[in-house]
Amino acid sequence: MSVEHLSAELSPLSVQFVDGIAEVRLCRPEQCNALNIELIQALLKCLTDLQHRQDLKAVLLRAEGTHFCSGLDVASVMQSPDSIEFLLSPMPGFPHNRVQHLALGWKALSVPVIAVMKGYVFGGGLQIALGADIRLTTPDSQWSVMEGRWGLIPDMGMTVSARGLVREDRLLQLTLSAERFNGTQAHHWGFATDVLDDPDYAAQLLLSQLAERSPEMVRAAKRLYRDSFDEVETNRLTLEEKLQRRLLGSAQQREAAMAQLERRPPQFD
Amino acid sequence: MSVEHLSAELSPLSVQFVDGIAEVRLCRPEQCNALNIELIQALLKCLTDLQHRQDLKAVLLRAEGTHFCSGLDVASVMQSPDSIEFLLSPMPGFPHNRVQHLALGWKALSVPVIAVMKGYVFGGGLQIALGADIRLTTPDSQWSVMEGRWGLIPDMGMTVSARGLVREDRLLQLTLSAERFNGTQAHHWGFATDVLDDPDYAAQLLLSQLAERSPEMVRAAKRLYRDSFDEVETNRLTLEEKLQRRLLGSAQQREAAMAQLERRPPQFD
Amino acid sequence: MSVEHLSAELSPLSVQFVDGIAEVRLCRPEQCNALNIELIQALLKCLTDLQHRQDLKAVLLRAEGTHFCSGLDVASVMQSPDSIEFLLSPMPGFPHNRVQHLALGWKALSVPVIAVMKGYVFGGGLQIALGADIRLTTPDSQWSVMEGRWGLIPDMGMTVSARGLVREDRLLQLTLSAERFNGTQAHHWGFATDVLDDPDYAAQLLLSQLAERSPEMVRAAKRLYRDSFDEVETNRLTLEEKLQRRLLGSAQQREAAMAQLERRPPQFD
Repeated sequence: MSVEHLSAELSPLSVQFVDGIAEVRLCRPEQCNALNIELIQALLKCLTDLQHRQDLKAVLLRAEGTHFCSGLDVASVMQSPDSIEFLLSPMPGFPHNRVQHLALGWKALSVPVIAVMKGYVFGGGLQIALGADIRLTTPDSQWSVMEGRWGLIPDMGMTVSARGLVREDRLLQLTLSAERFNGTQAHHWGFATDVLDDPDYAAQLLLSQLAERSPEMVRAAKRLYRDSFDEVETNRLTLEEKLQRRLLGSAQQREAAMAQLERRPPQFD
Repeated sequence: MSVEHLSAELSPLSVQFVDGIAEVRLCRPEQCNALNIELIQALLKCLTDLQHRQDLKAVLLRAEGTHFCSGLDVASVMQSPDSIEFLLSPMPGFPHNRVQHLALGWKALSVPVIAVMKGYVFGGGLQIALGADIRLTTPDSQWSVMEGRWGLIPDMGMTVSARGLVREDRLLQLTLSAERFNGTQAHHWGFATDVLDDPDYAAQLLLSQLAERSPEMVRAAKRLYRDSFDEVETNRLTLEEKLQRRLLGSAQQREAAMAQLERRPPQFD
Repeated sequence: MSVEHLSAELSPLSVQFVDGIAEVRLCRPEQCNALNIELIQALLKCLTDLQHRQDLKAVLLRAEGTHFCSGLDVASVMQSPDSIEFLLSPMPGFPHNRVQHLALGWKALSVPVIAVMKGYVFGGGLQIALGADIRLTTPDSQWSVMEGRWGLIPDMGMTVSARGLVREDRLLQLTLSAERFNGTQAHHWGFATDVLDDPDYAAQLLLSQLAERSPEMVRAAKRLYRDSFDEVETNRLTLEEKLQRRLLGSAQQREAAMAQLERRPPQFD
């Protein structure tokens, strides 16, 4: 097992690499992990770093303390016109702006992102959560599409990240009411993939299942669903075949098949 | 509070304005609010009137009597080739015909439409209900995609209004069987946003939540989800930013934020 | 009642026609109906035959024995490069390859396909099931997106067939974990339309409801939802009107309406 710490002692974000898994933790627990400009900058830098790592198999996104994220630190961000212009400026290399990248950047990674949400999952925190591929939460977590209270709409990519997950009528109702809902409802409505008493354990279980898959199959699976989403039928089917042809007969695919036939764990290293 | 009555005594439709809310009531209770040509004409005129009002914040759509709407008044409409040609003729200013406008006209309004459905929600009545943005019903309401009994398919825009709400396999099964299902099932399958013993109370609660939102944010929220629906990812994200930039720093947005910080109700008038 | 048997004694597939219903049965019960090259060839031929029958009203797809289908017969198929090239070669007349046609071929038929799944519904079997328009299963059936165990991704059209049925986060989680889930979960997540103790009875009930619909309405209903799926709003609405105009006033539509008004069963023969 190789452990690598990349974050400074006082950073609002902790990033740790263990056996190909990047564990990213929001680290402002005293402020309910509210998004101030330092945490936002750290998240954007982290996403850029992860984008360039070839040795990743998955990302685990979670938070220090009781709450996942209480949303934008309004006092810190909204007062400064410069901060707002920075957030709405284009994210280099992506067809969206920086505040949207805080959520959609996780989807853009080539490996699956699993997020664990407890406590408050409010506003920008909810939208970051929606950027993760698989979202695990507790029954008593508290969620809110909170932007309406500030006279604003959610603008961190939710029209993309929630598509196919949460129905439009529910999104509109929650956006207009800005009311809180718990983790059980969040799961029922599609914000969370699963609701569990111990989502950390469930995340570890999924990571252990991932360890039995070939790294190239894991990346192909993420691409398959993400890149087909916006495509018409013919392009979806072409993508399926293209990705499969790359896997078929590769060293990793043959090892996976041999291990399966011999009823032993595969060895991909 | 300002109340304004726009409907004549014997009209099959009642429209009433109270504090920026238009309450629209189907008024043929003795005929289960079946859609005869007079009610259809009144609905089309009402939708055109509402389209041009600048002072609206929301629409509440409901029905007099026990039943929301038992569908097309077949004896009245189907016998006349003229009526059918009228219904299938283009709705001026819209990319759909008049019978489709009976449902999609609600989506085309710039403010949220909340509908309350009780009793029968059959055929054309079900399709009108699906045109509302947020749909509240009782557990014992009765629904049916009824057109198949007449050798017809549903053609009031359901392929648009039900998209993302009701799964295609369920739509096909209900279209082929033409069977009845209750409000609990309607909610489970996505026809209704919520199922409640007292949907009128729930509608009033949502309207009271809306009263705390700025009028421009309410319209932006409706546009956000409606106009992004048919768009590819890049256009969705551009729309998010465009709508948000219009809100940011406006008088209404600043009042919403100040009220939030000062923990008082906002004043938008 | 007219019965017609088209399958040879030892064929891995049985096809039987009764009163306009084609009943297709996978017939390798001793091998859990695993897809070997003979069964695949028989399915492709069957789909081509059904495509050309004008007298069909519906298709019922099921399996002999305890299990619907345990997926690809890997020993038989994966060992031969020729088999793999055959499966990935274009299906004549369709914008997809042969292995995709095993699932999407059912959608391409002009009549509804109802499938009954019990026991194992694994890998390719799961993907064939998803090609059916209406999918009925038992609570204790066992499902798995199994391809990852072999270092592969699902490539039988699931990005098309599961769209709008199963959420992308669930598809990714099941693809990565390759874990088993039961019929109740399959229904909850959208793989199955309904979960019932006796799905065969439910299939017969739906077929008896279909018998009361006009043949042309049944085909129009299938087309309505299938052909609008990939289309933008305007095209969906145009299709609705086009299909309805063909039905309106036809002999079958008038008979359906007369039977409805006279409260008698319609006669379409």
